[in-house]
Amino acid sequence: MSPADFVIAPSWIIPVTPAEAVLTDHALAVSDGRILAILPAATARDYWPEAHWEARPGCVLIPGLINAHTHAAMTLLRGYADDLPLNRWLGEYIWPAEQRFVGREFVRDGTALAALEMIRSGTTCFQDMYMFPDETAAVAAECGMRVVSSMIVIEMPTPWAATVDEYINRGLEVHDRYRDHPLVRTSFGPHAPYTVSDATLRRLVTLANQLDVNIQIHMHETTSEIADALAMQGKRPMARLDALGVVSPLLNAVHAVHLDEVEIELLAARNASVIHCPESNMKLASGACPVQRLLTHGVNVALGTDGPASNNDIDMLGELRTAALLAKLESGDAAAVPAATALAMATINGARALGLEAITGSLEVGKAADMVCVDLSAVACQPVHNPLSQLVYSATRDQVCDVWVAGRRLYGEDGFTTIDAEDVMVRVNAWLARMRAPG
Amino acid sequence: MSPADFVIAPSWIIPVTPAEAVLTDHALAVSDGRILAILPAATARDYWPEAHWEARPGCVLIPGLINAHTHAAMTLLRGYADDLPLNRWLGEYIWPAEQRFVGREFVRDGTALAALEMIRSGTTCFQDMYMFPDETAAVAAECGMRVVSSMIVIEMPTPWAATVDEYINRGLEVHDRYRDHPLVRTSFGPHAPYTVSDATLRRLVTLANQLDVNIQIHMHETTSEIADALAMQGKRPMARLDALGVVSPLLNAVHAVHLDEVEIELLAARNASVIHCPESNMKLASGACPVQRLLTHGVNVALGTDGPASNNDIDMLGELRTAALLAKLESGDAAAVPAATALAMATINGARALGLEAITGSLEVGKAADMVCVDLSAVACQPVHNPLSQLVYSATRDQVCDVWVAGRRLYGEDGFTTIDAEDVMVRVNAWLARMRAPG
Repeated sequence: MSPADFVIAPSWIIPVTPAEAVLTDHALAVSDGRILAILPAATARDYWPEAHWEARPGCVLIPGLINAHTHAAMTLLRGYADDLPLNRWLGEYIWPAEQRFVGREFVRDGTALAALEMIRSGTTCFQDMYMFPDETAAVAAECGMRVVSSMIVIEMPTPWAATVDEYINRGLEVHDRYRDHPLVRTSFGPHAPYTVSDATLRRLVTLANQLDVNIQIHMHETTSEIADALAMQGKRPMARLDALGVVSPLLNAVHAVHLDEVEIELLAARNASVIHCPESNMKLASGACPVQRLLTHGVNVALGTDGPASNNDIDMLGELRTAALLAKLESGDAAAVPAATALAMATINGARALGLEAITGSLEVGKAADMVCVDLSAVACQPVHNPLSQLVYSATRDQVCDVWVAGRRLYGEDGFTTIDAEDVMVRVNAWLARMRAPG
Repeated sequence: MSPADFVIAPSWIIPVTPAEAVLTDHALAVSDGRILAILPAATARDYWPEAHWEARPGCVLIPGLINAHTHAAMTLLRGYADDLPLNRWLGEYIWPAEQRFVGREFVRDGTALAALEMIRSGTTCFQDMYMFPDETAAVAAECGMRVVSSMIVIEMPTPWAATVDEYINRGLEVHDRYRDHPLVRTSFGPHAPYTVSDATLRRLVTLANQLDVNIQIHMHETTSEIADALAMQGKRPMARLDALGVVSPLLNAVHAVHLDEVEIELLAARNASVIHCPESNMKLASGACPVQRLLTHGVNVALGTDGPASNNDIDMLGELRTAALLAKLESGDAAAVPAATALAMATINGARALGLEAITGSLEVGKAADMVCVDLSAVACQPVHNPLSQLVYSATRDQVCDVWVAGRRLYGEDGFTTIDAEDVMVRVNAWLARMRAPG
């Protein structure tokens, strides 16, 4: 056996692949940022007597969580406006605030706050859609997180770009800059069917195929989006997207709350992924995505928090619990989305949606050592009849005790190792003061 | 101004009454277990220069949370069985396990674990329904928590009692024993319409009126409960309960998931309370209680976690967040159950349901000093645009940093002050070993 850089020995390992497996008293060895072996702890002791040993009694080791859809910089608008319908929330509060404040520094500082929150809560990889995706990528890379930063496109001017051409060109610059970065990928991020034209969507499909990058788009989030499209274009948004070639294996259909049977079958036939954002869909009263029916049809369903201004956190452990509960309510079946499935949605399904399945999303030999330790010794998780159940239905983000990406520690008992939390907080509080000042 | 025993000075105080109030830079003074004053911090410094001062920068002070319906001892069955419909979950797993294991010690140890979890997460008062309610009351009293321990009645033998007479008599003994205890109350707890006869319900109504105690009963939890009653008795369970006099100001209708318009109006007309248990209702796929419609009709809606085996925690901060999100989804209105309403459901509405409104449920001068400090400096709650929003939509149980009941500290930076957590864990793990042993 090759030498190990370090070995982790928790009470339980949930590798996600194979599904539902729970390994007791096993150890995981890391070499050169990758998973070298997963084997009984006693055997590991014999193999690597000299290796650095991380004993974690009472803890469960899981793959790093993957937040497949967020707008990270919007942490700065967390709690800025709540308890409003989507159109008023956006039109009267969020868009005016963005118009006033969003620029390069806002995105840098907001994403840094998001990185703190994500790392602290066990997220090792996220797909983002916002202005200044170069800043998002830079912050994530500095923190050692994996990111898929979307080349956003919307047919209205923002501080990031004024025209579709400019959106695409600036996006492609980001793509080129990070082409060889081990942690950064890009995807196209046309905002929504109602904010992007046919011609632009056709162009993005061609470019996405050339570059082999995904397309994430908010789709079928509300009933009014569908009603408006029917009134104006005579078809539902997804039918239009399909006619334009958007519904393909590269599609990350974000929200997909309102789907008829034909649309579910189409998503399955086209091998597209759905990014389910349960808490945002509940908070904005958008509805409940038919997750169990999608899964039954073989659609890959990943999980996202959506932006922290409509959630109001970017906590994947909380989100996967909500996903498990909501799926039962939506389907009327208490057996829908059991604990193992909820965890898979937040890990391997996310990796699949983002095109990172070969690299991350499960604890398998050869994959990157993207891993999270969760301490189940909290009173709210005792006694541990079933580590998988306790993780999904009883644990909170605060029980995350270790986070590694590609074998590099990002968080542990001494706190954050790649980001200066105090400095971020100073900048965040300066933004709070600016936003409170009369406009 | 009279002398203060101690003064708490957090960044914000949310008293709950008046609704939506958020006081900045105020202090709360405690004397003899009661709230003596709430006033600007600078003024408090002048009044009580010598008082013990608890400064809590970055924290919000709220009333202690009230869990209006749980089965606390079932912590020992947390994660024992999941992802199953209610009838299989109960019939194949929970009831057989209870038959094998539940006795006086199980209830004592399970309730002690629940007390740890509740105190740690800011719950200061709970209403319980389980066998051995004397043990539940004893554990809560020892821990310094407020409790309403139900005199359970079910028409089947359990280790607690064999006949209806015995259930009632043993319950009344508990009622008498705690008649003058400052922290313990009792209520009647007929299990459900389908497990308690007309004659017994009539008897309980008479007794409840004589003793002036509430009646909590699981009601309209599932559609099959209603369909079965229609098939067997020709009327819906609530119509039967009303004919028997159960629907009154003393009623705590637990779950009340499936209600038609007439039933909502009846609950309002009778001044009954509903105890909403959103996470349990989602997890068991029971449905979603029409909370916003109940509130609009003037019904008092309190919040419960239900038992930790169907939730799987007894975390009221998590529960009130779920309640806020679910109400929006259920009503299709993003303005339904805003943050202040969700917090009220978990505090003053609970106190009202339990008949404790004069004593607890809000931070008002003269009420008991039942209080919880929540630290909003966690990254997931930053920046604090709105302490109420951050508390409801972003905070977790782990941010609870201080808990007092009647001015007595139950939890703080040095941990639990009224219960030996290590000793409880030893007993809990002994139960885990027993439950794992072949039966």
